[in-house]
Amino acid sequence: MSLPQRVRLVEVGPRDGLQNESHPVSVSDKLQLVQDLTDAGVSYIEAGSFVSPKWVPQMAGSAELFAGIQRKDGVIYAALAPNLRGFEDALAAGVKEIAVFAAASESFSQRNINCSISESLDRFLPIMEAARLHGISVRGYVSCVLGCPYEGDIAPKQVAAVANELFAMGCYEVSLGDTIGTGTPGATRTLFDVVAGQIPRGKLAGHFHDTYGQALANIYASLLEGIQVFDSSVAGLGGCPYAKGATGNVASEDVVYLLQGLGIETGIDLDKLITAGQRISDILGRANGSRVAKARLSA
Amino acid sequence: MSLPQRVRLVEVGPRDGLQNESHPVSVSDKLQLVQDLTDAGVSYIEAGSFVSPKWVPQMAGSAELFAGIQRKDGVIYAALAPNLRGFEDALAAGVKEIAVFAAASESFSQRNINCSISESLDRFLPIMEAARLHGISVRGYVSCVLGCPYEGDIAPKQVAAVANELFAMGCYEVSLGDTIGTGTPGATRTLFDVVAGQIPRGKLAGHFHDTYGQALANIYASLLEGIQVFDSSVAGLGGCPYAKGATGNVASEDVVYLLQGLGIETGIDLDKLITAGQRISDILGRANGSRVAKARLSA
Repeated sequence: MSLPQRVRLVEVGPRDGLQNESHPVSVSDKLQLVQDLTDAGVSYIEAGSFVSPKWVPQMAGSAELFAGIQRKDGVIYAALAPNLRGFEDALAAGVKEIAVFAAASESFSQRNINCSISESLDRFLPIMEAARLHGISVRGYVSCVLGCPYEGDIAPKQVAAVANELFAMGCYEVSLGDTIGTGTPGATRTLFDVVAGQIPRGKLAGHFHDTYGQALANIYASLLEGIQVFDSSVAGLGGCPYAKGATGNVASEDVVYLLQGLGIETGIDLDKLITAGQRISDILGRANGSRVAKARLSA
Repeated sequence: MSLPQRVRLVEVGPRDGLQNESHPVSVSDKLQLVQDLTDAGVSYIEAGSFVSPKWVPQMAGSAELFAGIQRKDGVIYAALAPNLRGFEDALAAGVKEIAVFAAASESFSQRNINCSISESLDRFLPIMEAARLHGISVRGYVSCVLGCPYEGDIAPKQVAAVANELFAMGCYEVSLGDTIGTGTPGATRTLFDVVAGQIPRGKLAGHFHDTYGQALANIYASLLEGIQVFDSSVAGLGGCPYAKGATGNVASEDVVYLLQGLGIETGIDLDKLITAGQRISDILGRANGSRVAKARLSA
């Protein structure tokens, strides 16, 4: 067992999190959240998404949001841009890094974005080309890597194939997402082992959902597999769209606590992160989804 | 990495769990819970405690409870018996296995049971003697093994010394409890490694609290250290007495889900366990503390 000395956390609360909250959040409240996360030492914040507000009303105002961010040196403020129109809007808003996503499950791709995996990957080609032209970095997500709500189990080889396509077309890092949270540590290790047959481990990230309480166990398993980048959501923002009232994204506070306990550096101030998570939880009028925050704030 | 093929779960919900719930539960409701757990295939149930009902009103009626249990072959129905009086009452009630507990923290022992660790161990000697005489098995608990609410860090050597005393005086198994849930996987592995220098790994159990969300990661770490027995509480019964509103005992459902995912046999039917946990949660009028149960029941 040799664990990494340092881990980078990709904070997805303002995007992946708020996108899945029913309560709308104003641009000024989002700006406060991004500022709080920056102040806590988070070095990567996925702040918004350039999609039609008709599809995703929670992400309306992303251009205004990016215009208002007080950027701190060394911090990446990224946005999701699922198509060329979104990419152009992101570019116009001054975004320097974007993310694209594909599914490892054919059924999920069809039901979620109404096209095959292969078609979804083809649609990224002009985005990748435009991104190269403008010096924009692109991060790739693969969803349903440890299970699909429609198909059940997904073969690690299938995940590796999709991840490899994203990597080959220019994504500098590919994040493997356990979208429905059904994965357990053995399957997680096997998955990274198989995908690492095609993509270097240093180019992979883990994105775990805590719906079945397995996220931290899976992150520990991933660390043992040499993975050093993890996505998480402050206060566990987002919930699980496939099980109402259940947990979605793993809470950033819980991940930071785990990593601190393991002696792994993140650059994040846990107390400030807890404050950031409680403030947005109060705005949303929801319970804080972080167990660490709950324990610390009620002790 | 070589994981055990089989794990034994010690269900502590009816005792450790209900003891820390403010809502009182009738003996008939407790009997239903014990029956539900038995039906779910749980092979070890800590059902009650023989202590003064003045100290612990939630545990009143344990004699009546044990008289009413429909015992199933192969299932152990145990009780906590912290002193000789409790042991005699347990014996009279037909209990075949008891548990005793000591703390690894001097401050915790003083504040919790008003005596030193050494004095608490001395008090067990007549219980152990009487247990031997009557052919009663004794399981030992050590609390605060990964942190104390008063002292903070606890040295693994100190835990090993207390565990070894319990083992040497005749406890057939010693369960190491992370009472405040602050432990993380690296500390867990170090702890078992140190304690296993004195007691065979096959005689050790892990008792994790999920207050900081670390319990399943710690259980996975323990499995990697060769530990094959874990305590857990259905529906996460019990909460955390040191942080109101926070989580206490790890939920049995979440542990079973983890183990199933790892291909480890427990003999437990997860669906029936979820039903048992939801029934007692309804009786208590509390939210189900198992993430697996929440996800399954809301899907």
